[in-house]
Amino acid sequence: MRAWVLKSRPKGMPQQSDFDLVELPDQPLQDGQLRVRNLWLSVDPYMRGRMNDVKSYVPPFALGEPMQGGAVGEVIESRNSGFAPGDKVLHMAGWRDTATIGAESMPQKLPANMGVSDDTWLHNLGLTGGTAYFGLLRAAEAKAGDIVFVSAAAGAVGSAVVQIAKLKGMTVIGSAGGPDKVAFVKELGADACIDYKAGPVLPQLMEAAPKGIDVYFDNVGGEHLDAAFATARERARFAICGMIDVYNDGKPQELRYIIRTIPTRLTMRGFIWTDYFGEIGTFQQEMGAWVTGGQIKARTTVKDGLDSTLDAFLGLFSGANTGKMLVRL
Amino acid sequence: MRAWVLKSRPKGMPQQSDFDLVELPDQPLQDGQLRVRNLWLSVDPYMRGRMNDVKSYVPPFALGEPMQGGAVGEVIESRNSGFAPGDKVLHMAGWRDTATIGAESMPQKLPANMGVSDDTWLHNLGLTGGTAYFGLLRAAEAKAGDIVFVSAAAGAVGSAVVQIAKLKGMTVIGSAGGPDKVAFVKELGADACIDYKAGPVLPQLMEAAPKGIDVYFDNVGGEHLDAAFATARERARFAICGMIDVYNDGKPQELRYIIRTIPTRLTMRGFIWTDYFGEIGTFQQEMGAWVTGGQIKARTTVKDGLDSTLDAFLGLFSGANTGKMLVRL
Repeated sequence: MRAWVLKSRPKGMPQQSDFDLVELPDQPLQDGQLRVRNLWLSVDPYMRGRMNDVKSYVPPFALGEPMQGGAVGEVIESRNSGFAPGDKVLHMAGWRDTATIGAESMPQKLPANMGVSDDTWLHNLGLTGGTAYFGLLRAAEAKAGDIVFVSAAAGAVGSAVVQIAKLKGMTVIGSAGGPDKVAFVKELGADACIDYKAGPVLPQLMEAAPKGIDVYFDNVGGEHLDAAFATARERARFAICGMIDVYNDGKPQELRYIIRTIPTRLTMRGFIWTDYFGEIGTFQQEMGAWVTGGQIKARTTVKDGLDSTLDAFLGLFSGANTGKMLVRL
Repeated sequence: MRAWVLKSRPKGMPQQSDFDLVELPDQPLQDGQLRVRNLWLSVDPYMRGRMNDVKSYVPPFALGEPMQGGAVGEVIESRNSGFAPGDKVLHMAGWRDTATIGAESMPQKLPANMGVSDDTWLHNLGLTGGTAYFGLLRAAEAKAGDIVFVSAAAGAVGSAVVQIAKLKGMTVIGSAGGPDKVAFVKELGADACIDYKAGPVLPQLMEAAPKGIDVYFDNVGGEHLDAAFATARERARFAICGMIDVYNDGKPQELRYIIRTIPTRLTMRGFIWTDYFGEIGTFQQEMGAWVTGGQIKARTTVKDGLDSTLDAFLGLFSGANTGKMLVRL
């Protein structure tokens, strides 16, 4: 097997030299284990956090060992009665071509008759779709009629938020970088989309949402978060999903308008989609129907081959992806 | 009557020259109105916001007219059958010695048999006590066993928060400026109190709360708020009551640790005590019993005479008060 290992903990933006693609011997299969040939690998911004040696909701990646991440593969050998060769599985032993996995990698057999492509389990029916769904509807308690602002709206999570919000009867203002992404967000149904690369966020947001916003779905932090504080209406709710602006630099967030938390009685809430695992059935049913019915479109940016995995990951921080970034093996 | 009027809207820290103490003719009493001789005036940090020409939860003070604020007075003339001369009333026509008031000033007759001093209705049984009670127990959903951090813990609201939290079985860490205030906060029952004037907040808070904090009651913003983000435990709740650090300067808050909102699934909520008016009966009953039973002590800083009102107000921003700042006429 070949796998990406973390050689050194990045300071700031991760560098090629922090990683290595290595050849490792296949381990003999233990009782209960599966050998899986990976077909799709997921790269996600949250992985940057696991490269730090900091206790968090997921443990840090170990140095010198293969990194983990969402993946879809096909079982090629099984010593687990629940799985047979040929089964497709979603699991967490990504960043490698072949994986020898047990329960720690949380393998789930993909339902054969859903009518969705394999990679859907790494975006709309998986982490990014679930993050969008639960963040918008649970953490932010968004409801029909709300004015919703979404940053990184052309990204994997953001593009799902835009579409779910429209399906639920909300007004949606996105933010994305550059005319192509802005056009994509509007195609998804957003009522407006600002281009944060074309000028400061706040004046654009004030023009797009002259009445202010009820909900902010934060993927980036920084200037976007401050603009959301500035335009929040009474009882606004912010779901804090990510702050990609600050994953790689330790700079403090400069928030001029956070004081508006008081007069607006704003609620800001951090969340992780696994907080809502008890409702995952509801999510997969509703989202599954939207995906198979064509009401939620997925845009993916696909890189080919295990060698391209690191570039795919690094591209997340320069906006190289529209929609979900994936690696196809 | 003599009254303080706002002459010009302050830029940054209010200056003496922004205000005037003027003599105004007494207006003839209309049906339904009262004439009240004020005994106690309240000055509160939130009044700074009303000096700006910004729409908020309370309208801005009008230029050239007497300012408003909490006051306790004695009725000297009444054309309202609900009030008789000699009645004590709590109302909003402060910043003046004599007030001619109608329903817009929300006069409430003080109960005669509560066994509390008149000024109590301007602190523990009024705005500051209610803000502490509802902010801690409702906005922050604090419960027995929580580790609670309170900034401006020697102030009017903070000192009530400390005592309520102890009565409810919480561990309390205060922050105050200087050894006298720190000693006062400990006298109130706080398990620890840091001195923010003696050094940076974060290392002191980490020492006082090695396990981190569950609740932060914010009166100041800035460095205290950032230290609270840095030490928040999972499912921490922040009640944002005030940000006195930033009322007078427009500087952005520099928050290095706000990103911890995500892994901790922190909830931050702004509130105003009137959000909980439906529960004011519960508050007055529970707080009244604590006050008359001596379980909640009040410290007040009292200035004498209408002329001293402006100095009393300005003193709020330099920490001139321990406990509630009041003016006695």
